[in-house]
Amino acid sequence: MTHRIFITIEYDGGPFVGWQRQDNGISVQQVLEAAACTLTGGDCPIQGAGRTDSGVHATGQVAHLDVPDRFDAARVMAALNALTAEHPVTVRSAHEVPAEAHARFSATGRRYLYRILPRLAPPALDLGRVWHHRAALAVPPMQLAAEQLVGRHDFTSFRASQCQADSPLRTLDELRVETIGEEVHVHAAARSFLHHQVRNIVGTLALVGTGKWTPDDVAAALRARDRSAADPTAPPEGLYLTKVTYPF
Amino acid sequence: MTHRIFITIEYDGGPFVGWQRQDNGISVQQVLEAAACTLTGGDCPIQGAGRTDSGVHATGQVAHLDVPDRFDAARVMAALNALTAEHPVTVRSAHEVPAEAHARFSATGRRYLYRILPRLAPPALDLGRVWHHRAALAVPPMQLAAEQLVGRHDFTSFRASQCQADSPLRTLDELRVETIGEEVHVHAAARSFLHHQVRNIVGTLALVGTGKWTPDDVAAALRARDRSAADPTAPPEGLYLTKVTYPF
Repeated sequence: MTHRIFITIEYDGGPFVGWQRQDNGISVQQVLEAAACTLTGGDCPIQGAGRTDSGVHATGQVAHLDVPDRFDAARVMAALNALTAEHPVTVRSAHEVPAEAHARFSATGRRYLYRILPRLAPPALDLGRVWHHRAALAVPPMQLAAEQLVGRHDFTSFRASQCQADSPLRTLDELRVETIGEEVHVHAAARSFLHHQVRNIVGTLALVGTGKWTPDDVAAALRARDRSAADPTAPPEGLYLTKVTYPF
Repeated sequence: MTHRIFITIEYDGGPFVGWQRQDNGISVQQVLEAAACTLTGGDCPIQGAGRTDSGVHATGQVAHLDVPDRFDAARVMAALNALTAEHPVTVRSAHEVPAEAHARFSATGRRYLYRILPRLAPPALDLGRVWHHRAALAVPPMQLAAEQLVGRHDFTSFRASQCQADSPLRTLDELRVETIGEEVHVHAAARSFLHHQVRNIVGTLALVGTGKWTPDDVAAALRARDRSAADPTAPPEGLYLTKVTYPF
């Protein structure tokens, strides 16, 4: 008999092609599945709550796997951490869930953090962990612009052309911009996001931060329902999947 | 004619043998001196405010160098950053100072941050940037213990045996322990520190955090004036030189 375990995962997205298995390089999912296979001695698929792109990090990705009953959650966590030690992937916590719990389909909310380092000097300590933005950013207008995007909208203007979602409608529950030390952080929360939605939004907010756009321009871009109306995509290295929430 | 420039430097200590030039590997000083030499076309020694050990990081190391008058501070910063781009070293700022200003001897204060990650799961994103401490730490008793060490004391118990300072007397102006997210941060400020003083103090505070020692035990260790009375040295990867202050 098997039981289902939820694991919460932290990873440095830098060396990976992303969460999802791909033909063109190593993925986080593949590293974890290989470890689970070694632990259980059989095939052990791992389902993540959401895909993250190449270079995107996570501090709170969630995934599920089914393992023989004799492996409790603490043992699964310890074994996966021992078996993935050479990769920048770590299982932060693990717990047993009902058999019908699904990391992706049961999720009721996702949170992302986007870190921007607005300064002339390149990052030495946080290279690959922040968007190095050489120009200064004014946070108050960025926050005003962010408020235009909160709520239920057609986010076509902030959606990647290759997005496979059925609908461009999403409800952004939170979009908040704050200064943390010398960084600017953007916090985003929604039930689910479109492909590149956070990075496209951050790219546009940065345009407001440098004064090239006004908050009203962002509202107009949203109304345009046209990807070309908004700004380029912010780079992956500033983005972190920080939390996935479940009703149980 | 030359003029003197102060530079504020950030670096990842991981790949270096430390700040100071050594025979056994590459140092931060050496990387910066090589760049300065390329810029000026001559020998260009760089004097740091303080040595940092191998693996110790900096967000606010300060150093001085003398360059021909035609290189202003902004140009020195841009050139050093361009010429050190392949190393995790960055000049955050640069400004001209009087010819008698000395990065080491004019300094009136130094600040360090020590980052501890107390959790079972190893760090994926902050590997080499924090002390991974597998046991939980109670911060209130650590803070009580820290208060025993503030002020002017003979710090022989917290001084490396190879320390070359003339006196073990130092005045610790601040020693503060706080929880930041899932990390424990220790902030230390003094005019100057003994060799390994911060790391030895943090090693002992961690013993208090796990309940093995009481704050009174720390006061007794200080009074003992004996290195063997205190706890092992915390590892270098959690330590950051964050600020050096000057009267000008």
